[in-house]
Amino acid sequence: MIKAKVVGAGGYGGVGITELLLKHPEVEIGCLVSLSDTGRKMSDVFPHLRGFCDDVIVSPDDPKTKEHYDVVFYSTPDGVGMQSAEEEIARGAKVIDYSGDFRFGTVERYAEYANFIGLDPVHKSPALLTETVYGLPELHDVTDSQTIVGNPGCFAVSCILGLAPAVEAGIIDTKSIICDCKTGVSGAGKKPNAAFHYPNRYDNMNAYKLAGHQHVVEIEQELGLLGEDDVQITFTAQVVPVCRGIMSCLYASLEGQTGEQLLEVYKEFNKNNPFVRVQDARTPASIADVRGTNYCNLTVDVDERNNRLRVISHIDNLMKGQAGNALQNMNLMFGFDSGIGLASAGQYP
Amino acid sequence: MIKAKVVGAGGYGGVGITELLLKHPEVEIGCLVSLSDTGRKMSDVFPHLRGFCDDVIVSPDDPKTKEHYDVVFYSTPDGVGMQSAEEEIARGAKVIDYSGDFRFGTVERYAEYANFIGLDPVHKSPALLTETVYGLPELHDVTDSQTIVGNPGCFAVSCILGLAPAVEAGIIDTKSIICDCKTGVSGAGKKPNAAFHYPNRYDNMNAYKLAGHQHVVEIEQELGLLGEDDVQITFTAQVVPVCRGIMSCLYASLEGQTGEQLLEVYKEFNKNNPFVRVQDARTPASIADVRGTNYCNLTVDVDERNNRLRVISHIDNLMKGQAGNALQNMNLMFGFDSGIGLASAGQYP
Amino acid sequence: MIKAKVVGAGGYGGVGITELLLKHPEVEIGCLVSLSDTGRKMSDVFPHLRGFCDDVIVSPDDPKTKEHYDVVFYSTPDGVGMQSAEEEIARGAKVIDYSGDFRFGTVERYAEYANFIGLDPVHKSPALLTETVYGLPELHDVTDSQTIVGNPGCFAVSCILGLAPAVEAGIIDTKSIICDCKTGVSGAGKKPNAAFHYPNRYDNMNAYKLAGHQHVVEIEQELGLLGEDDVQITFTAQVVPVCRGIMSCLYASLEGQTGEQLLEVYKEFNKNNPFVRVQDARTPASIADVRGTNYCNLTVDVDERNNRLRVISHIDNLMKGQAGNALQNMNLMFGFDSGIGLASAGQYP
Amino acid sequence: MIKAKVVGAGGYGGVGITELLLKHPEVEIGCLVSLSDTGRKMSDVFPHLRGFCDDVIVSPDDPKTKEHYDVVFYSTPDGVGMQSAEEEIARGAKVIDYSGDFRFGTVERYAEYANFIGLDPVHKSPALLTETVYGLPELHDVTDSQTIVGNPGCFAVSCILGLAPAVEAGIIDTKSIICDCKTGVSGAGKKPNAAFHYPNRYDNMNAYKLAGHQHVVEIEQELGLLGEDDVQITFTAQVVPVCRGIMSCLYASLEGQTGEQLLEVYKEFNKNNPFVRVQDARTPASIADVRGTNYCNLTVDVDERNNRLRVISHIDNLMKGQAGNALQNMNLMFGFDSGIGLASAGQYP
Repeated sequence: MIKAKVVGAGGYGGVGITELLLKHPEVEIGCLVSLSDTGRKMSDVFPHLRGFCDDVIVSPDDPKTKEHYDVVFYSTPDGVGMQSAEEEIARGAKVIDYSGDFRFGTVERYAEYANFIGLDPVHKSPALLTETVYGLPELHDVTDSQTIVGNPGCFAVSCILGLAPAVEAGIIDTKSIICDCKTGVSGAGKKPNAAFHYPNRYDNMNAYKLAGHQHVVEIEQELGLLGEDDVQITFTAQVVPVCRGIMSCLYASLEGQTGEQLLEVYKEFNKNNPFVRVQDARTPASIADVRGTNYCNLTVDVDERNNRLRVISHIDNLMKGQAGNALQNMNLMFGFDSGIGLASAGQYP
Repeated sequence: MIKAKVVGAGGYGGVGITELLLKHPEVEIGCLVSLSDTGRKMSDVFPHLRGFCDDVIVSPDDPKTKEHYDVVFYSTPDGVGMQSAEEEIARGAKVIDYSGDFRFGTVERYAEYANFIGLDPVHKSPALLTETVYGLPELHDVTDSQTIVGNPGCFAVSCILGLAPAVEAGIIDTKSIICDCKTGVSGAGKKPNAAFHYPNRYDNMNAYKLAGHQHVVEIEQELGLLGEDDVQITFTAQVVPVCRGIMSCLYASLEGQTGEQLLEVYKEFNKNNPFVRVQDARTPASIADVRGTNYCNLTVDVDERNNRLRVISHIDNLMKGQAGNALQNMNLMFGFDSGIGLASAGQYP
Repeated sequence: MIKAKVVGAGGYGGVGITELLLKHPEVEIGCLVSLSDTGRKMSDVFPHLRGFCDDVIVSPDDPKTKEHYDVVFYSTPDGVGMQSAEEEIARGAKVIDYSGDFRFGTVERYAEYANFIGLDPVHKSPALLTETVYGLPELHDVTDSQTIVGNPGCFAVSCILGLAPAVEAGIIDTKSIICDCKTGVSGAGKKPNAAFHYPNRYDNMNAYKLAGHQHVVEIEQELGLLGEDDVQITFTAQVVPVCRGIMSCLYASLEGQTGEQLLEVYKEFNKNNPFVRVQDARTPASIADVRGTNYCNLTVDVDERNNRLRVISHIDNLMKGQAGNALQNMNLMFGFDSGIGLASAGQYP
Repeated sequence: MIKAKVVGAGGYGGVGITELLLKHPEVEIGCLVSLSDTGRKMSDVFPHLRGFCDDVIVSPDDPKTKEHYDVVFYSTPDGVGMQSAEEEIARGAKVIDYSGDFRFGTVERYAEYANFIGLDPVHKSPALLTETVYGLPELHDVTDSQTIVGNPGCFAVSCILGLAPAVEAGIIDTKSIICDCKTGVSGAGKKPNAAFHYPNRYDNMNAYKLAGHQHVVEIEQELGLLGEDDVQITFTAQVVPVCRGIMSCLYASLEGQTGEQLLEVYKEFNKNNPFVRVQDARTPASIADVRGTNYCNLTVDVDERNNRLRVISHIDNLMKGQAGNALQNMNLMFGFDSGIGLASAGQYP
């Protein structure tokens, strides 16, 4: 039985990992930390947890947070994890961070990212950058010797899983990639704002951050590592009135492959990836197929008139795009089967 | 390990019990039967089950349906279960029927119900009416000697659980009861129709069946059994644009009890009911608290100015209102703990 | 051509009256006032108005607000209108206030209301209370000699129109009234909060303010004026995931009237009310029928088993429940036909 | 005063034009025709029209349909208009057809379209193909000498308006165009089906018709006429849980233009187009800005890192994408100002 601490328990990412940990046979929750809702029971903040998690949320200053935990989840904004991750590791914890803090392998890459999104480009914990790994198990081996993982961004998961097989196979022009991505509203977090006030959102959709979305940097990094050339994408973030789910339509120029050949490439790439399901363009697909689950469903298609790859990637942004993938990382970091507490079908409708 | 057959697997009630059985450690699914979708894989009809339930759906004539199963779920309309339940029991099965077929203890009560909703009043399997029980474990002991259960209607679960403590305590005027009930759309089933076509439903609500809803008969039967007087309710069914969930506002005249006293009555009544959570009127409540779960959350309130009970009952119509409650019955009929495969918190948001 | 000022232009009530005034052939908008969004174009705050209303929103201190306007709409919270309505009237304006400030005819009634909702019970402009009228034209004559009107609350409109004919006819027990009311989210205004953040609201419903809703006082006042007895209601406010619309189910004990007789009472009462449509319980009804319009559709029904009236009242809370009714008042206060700029069918779907 | 007949009055396209005609000062509705709902009042089928349009819907065989009307709207599937348009024109009517029947100028182009979507390639009324015009007034002059118009497809309107300025200016590679289009559910029409059953649609999104959407042919035709080269697009149709609205993200390779230059091209192109509003990428935009209106809002952007145009086109699919555009055509065909009955801002929220 391992003991977990969740930092940022009051947000969607925090409650998501809490729900998963509650069902996990090998973990118990030791400490829930949040800046907001301090002193309240987790089940008062999230009433569906009543009887399941009645622990009191503590502030980051609480002595309880200084105890030893086997695993610490940082469901926090950029810049938080890097301040105390070393300390946690020194106390014997393994760290899984949801932000951009540990997604980049060098201080230079981090600085590029931080500049892109307007943050201080100096990383607070550069030594850990050589230890961390970009926590997408379909691309990087995450093993039980890993002490820290940068859990990927939700859009990034959807785009990278949808493009990696083609980039690795060298069959697309990596300068021609377009990622047209639609997310549900939960991706924006729990804090209310005007854009996501129900009357403004219920029958609405829009693109946003046209000038540049923070996930672009990691997508280009990860795809760049897979192929021979640099990758430079056009990325459009959009929000539609669903709660959970990302659907990304991914386009790139091909050199004559057929849909069947492409399908083969994708199946081969994912043959050992239990949470990726590959299907052809005739099979109906929708985000309802993955809602509430850790799966990524990829529809693989070729527009043969135009020699263009079109892959449609479906995930639940709070699961494979966040807490689910974090738990998958945790399983691997502790030598558990990657599917424990995760291999579940969801509910329909 | 017991073996289950699901009749009506192609509908919401069928997929709901299938999802639950897949997670249940003591059950395996042996046979999925449906009139529609015959010959297709369950996971082609419900793609979220891909890799979890790829069994082929068979027709009711398929020899496979004649084999022995330990438990048979009839997720079917009125009149189906009564045609073959005896045969199933003769083959050694226990039967859980979702329709009105086995909710009434006598041919007379059944005839009253059948007349009310315009069906043939002659029951096809009257002998079983003396064996069946109204399958709401909070009211009736369901034990491992039980061979057949009439799983209650969704509105009925919500109203009965919300009123039973007060009726049993004899503190309300049973002629003054008003049940104002709002359901999500999934309660109407999987078959598309004009009323539930997205553009007509998304920003809409309406009352329906004002002349009489089929669940009224069982609500009046069950509450009548608890108290000394006959019960005669005013019932208004309404549909609102949510998928899952029933919220029923229940009103009745009291004789001077305070909110605190009423709360005590409700807590006492439910002290051994693991799936009922009682709370006072100051505690926030919403159907999101029970979405995807088998819980019934009751907000207990008194309008002291008017000496009127007001209870707000929240359930997931497809869980405590249908498949979840059916599994709870199954657990009890086989001597399992009632919470196996059910005691789960749901997902938020 | 009359000139209008809208105070509180940045909220839903303000944009609602702005939309209506823009289409009204006899009015021009002279001044838009708001505490928020000062200095921005109305069409930057509400982009659908681009090209239709590009006026700059001014602060309450702006000299422009001190000019003469023929009509002033206060789309503001309680306590705002009473501070400057006298001044406006002195400048020759007619005043329509959306809050509780001018809904009560005496300082005592106002104090009762103010106490009920926790406000200062001393009215700031008591002289106007003898001049104001409760602005529901179906109950009170609003004529061109009227200088000030208290525009009613949205729930109140729905309940009063649904009960007034029966109360006036003296056929219901006024102590038995229950108002079970469901509103769309826009009723809570434009300011974002956690309850109406899309992920919390999209598939959810809940009751709120069980301890007492501010509209109860005016419902009881207005119904009390119609009948011989005091009226004391049980009122339950609920919110469902629609944007616009209130559906109120109204119950009360009858003395043996049939549905047909009741229908006659309601039709007679409303024979000169152009915005009230009365229908029987067999006619399908939903809030979509009134969405975007100033109509109130009443389904009139009797539960004959229980001698109970059941009326279902449907309005658009932002139209007949707010800005539409305000314009209807304006039309009457200036001697225009009450339907000018209002008698429109809405859009479907 | 001109007299109108609406064929297909029972669908969304039919009720949409009916709503608009009811408000138009120069038109009266003479005849409503539909295969379904024959013999019912229009206001029984669409209750929001009660008191506004209580005409009885007649069958296509009704003698009333053979009378003279000044304008006939075919809100009907492919293949209907071509069977009787000549007859209507012979009786003195002008014809506006919503289907593909009259969108193509030659029998060859029509055959190509018909083959693409699996219809009989032989046009039933080839003589009219030389008279008809593709009814997008921003591209083709529609004048009062025009007797027949092929009203464009909803996706086509959104894509063509979003790309026409760039294609005409010759600044994009017409082989690099990608149209990633998301539509609301009303685009699929009024007939219920499983995909748009509320429980399947409410929290869902999906791509469809990946093998080829019927609007591709007309988009390529119209853009091809504007530029020097053939146009061959990759097109992805998607459906999201909104009722009304299309948001199309349009991509193409540029040759070094800046965002500012592109904006200039778009503004110049649209300087005389009253229903197209052009804005830069910093200005917030969403489909709520055009909901219920005839406007097309274009966000014009350049991804300068990749020399790629990105235009986001927002329309209401039932207005500028269907009935609104049809009325705009009618206005032009009768010499009215194009904005009569259309230049309205919509409602928010």
